[in-house]
Amino acid sequence: MRTLYHIWLSAQSRIVRLLLAEKDLHCDIKVERVWERREEFLALNPTGEVPLLIEPDGTTLTDVWVIVEYMEEMHPEVPLLGDTTLARAETRRLLVWFDQKFGREVTENLVGEKFMKRVTRSGQPSSDAIRAGRQNVHYHLDYISYLAESRRWLAGDEFSLADIAAAAHLSVVDYLGDVPWDSHPEARQWYSRIKSRPSFRPLLEDHVPGIPAPAHYRDLDF
Amino acid sequence: MRTLYHIWLSAQSRIVRLLLAEKDLHCDIKVERVWERREEFLALNPTGEVPLLIEPDGTTLTDVWVIVEYMEEMHPEVPLLGDTTLARAETRRLLVWFDQKFGREVTENLVGEKFMKRVTRSGQPSSDAIRAGRQNVHYHLDYISYLAESRRWLAGDEFSLADIAAAAHLSVVDYLGDVPWDSHPEARQWYSRIKSRPSFRPLLEDHVPGIPAPAHYRDLDF
Repeated sequence: MRTLYHIWLSAQSRIVRLLLAEKDLHCDIKVERVWERREEFLALNPTGEVPLLIEPDGTTLTDVWVIVEYMEEMHPEVPLLGDTTLARAETRRLLVWFDQKFGREVTENLVGEKFMKRVTRSGQPSSDAIRAGRQNVHYHLDYISYLAESRRWLAGDEFSLADIAAAAHLSVVDYLGDVPWDSHPEARQWYSRIKSRPSFRPLLEDHVPGIPAPAHYRDLDF
Repeated sequence: MRTLYHIWLSAQSRIVRLLLAEKDLHCDIKVERVWERREEFLALNPTGEVPLLIEPDGTTLTDVWVIVEYMEEMHPEVPLLGDTTLARAETRRLLVWFDQKFGREVTENLVGEKFMKRVTRSGQPSSDAIRAGRQNVHYHLDYISYLAESRRWLAGDEFSLADIAAAAHLSVVDYLGDVPWDSHPEARQWYSRIKSRPSFRPLLEDHVPGIPAPAHYRDLDF
């Protein structure tokens, strides 16, 4: 059996969940309270971070880059990076853009401050950081709108890991009610297409202890 | 002609320089003062960051992940990720370890504070950050020693991008004289093997305006 260790509202874990679901690969999902720094978990992954994926043959994989490329090589039936070297470069560029740049500028400022600080009991959220996150998200929604207007999906004609990375990060911010959908109709339309994919359903059912999802979070017609 | 835009002491640009040299691919190297946010450069790369690589056919590539995978696909004659899916996963894991974890815990604290803040005139170096960087580097040198003792190269029997990433980051810290080689003889021995590779020579000739390299930086027998 395949096992994924994750934590609630971890965008990177969601990238892996979506990737696996799109490739129709099943896995057990376990919550790992990374801040407890459990010894058995650190033995599996010295960085102590999620996502951590254990393959059926025991292979242990960490980091989005590693997991993405491994799964593409081992399970190429449903390609999620693209068909050509150039297409793959564009998908990877957007993957880095959303997973790292959006992650730093938006997700960390909002989910990091409002949620992770609370569960890890590591101080008060910074209102400066939250303000920055809420401002930065507009720029990224503009970029998503621009891409979604000029292409069928973010990286080109095919649904890809670019869509997965952007949607995974947006979904955790959306759980906290911080995505200003009203000002970005094209991005909203693209996200509603993602929301109706079977791979996305389990994420919409996620329940974070102590934080109920806003009504629109699960709603396909939001 | 291939062109690489870089900046002095950019570890990520050095990863690309080493990768190209190991694959025997020539390129023009241009300094891009990223903090000036030159319009022509932003048009090529909206993130405004180096490394930026322009291929002979005009293809523009940014980000280590994108460049690494593109060059491995296009120029597989000298493989630098490994021969099997599993070997590639291990190389990528270490690439992420050194480029992101070492980068955050050591390079940013030392090169970021002591050098980048100076050239970009963005305030005084934080002595706390510098202290943290000098402390963290020991942990990473221990890890390099452990890997270099149990394997021929960091990711296995073959020289790979894991060695390149670790050496690139160490080299910029070493330029500032902040690598405590004396306490880590195994890591020093591994680094001296890297230093004597032809691909590494140009990096040892680098001259950063206003900051002379310490004598041992260029010395193969340091």
